[in-house]
Amino acid sequence: MDKPQKPDPVRRFRDYRWDATDLLAYKEEGSAPFKAITRQTLFRDPALRAELRYFEVSPGGYSTLERHEHMHAVLILRGGGECLIGGEVRKIQTNDLVSIAPWTWHQFRASADDHLGFLCMVNVERDKPVQPTAEERKALEADPRIAAFLKQD
Amino acid sequence: MDKPQKPDPVRRFRDYRWDATDLLAYKEEGSAPFKAITRQTLFRDPALRAELRYFEVSPGGYSTLERHEHMHAVLILRGGGECLIGGEVRKIQTNDLVSIAPWTWHQFRASADDHLGFLCMVNVERDKPVQPTAEERKALEADPRIAAFLKQD
Repeated sequence: MDKPQKPDPVRRFRDYRWDATDLLAYKEEGSAPFKAITRQTLFRDPALRAELRYFEVSPGGYSTLERHEHMHAVLILRGGGECLIGGEVRKIQTNDLVSIAPWTWHQFRASADDHLGFLCMVNVERDKPVQPTAEERKALEADPRIAAFLKQD
Repeated sequence: MDKPQKPDPVRRFRDYRWDATDLLAYKEEGSAPFKAITRQTLFRDPALRAELRYFEVSPGGYSTLERHEHMHAVLILRGGGECLIGGEVRKIQTNDLVSIAPWTWHQFRASADDHLGFLCMVNVERDKPVQPTAEERKALEADPRIAAFLKQD
């Protein structure tokens, strides 16, 4: 019988894919609004209390508008775009850092002509995101800059 | 009295420095052998069970040869070089992933002509690294590839 193979401690990068790392759906299709975004789990290990994921949004795509108790620690690894963080819409570029505090509404959007790839560190033990009610969305859209950001769908 | 200023959720990147992020000594001078390496803590927050640091090694520099119970999850952000992981010396390039399992000897070295910058995710609660005894170092050096890697100091 073959000995079980030990995973290689070095995983090579090529064109925003990594060896021995699956390209996954961002979320279950139909579970929430999103567009043109994929997920790769770069590090998840019983020895680690947090995990590191890589999300990649194609030009014109976006993540789900949501919030949760747990915090997101984000580093933009590829390209750029914009993100909504609470009451602000901010431009984001490669290697910028983004802190999403607990219960802050957030959404990431790639530029029309560029990918947006980002690392996201989260605790392994964390709560599920919630999406805005119609009322909460209306309150966000009261700010014309946020309304313009959200209506690009 | 001025209201305490809320930290900006977006920290801009410029030339491997980030806004509102201190450039720190790698370790206390004289506490362990290392050369030409700096540290920036990108994310450390009471809401996170892990922290994300950025280490940058100048050409010809290196981190301390050490091991510990806690795991390192590494992504090379800039340049390249080599690392020792247990019994292996491996080439590393930008965006490659490196998993340092518990109690594995490891050391990062920049190329002679390139910087080596890497992200390192670790648990907030973790043990202190230990350095090899003379005997353990001798055992490592029994492998000529490891001896060649270590003698570049």
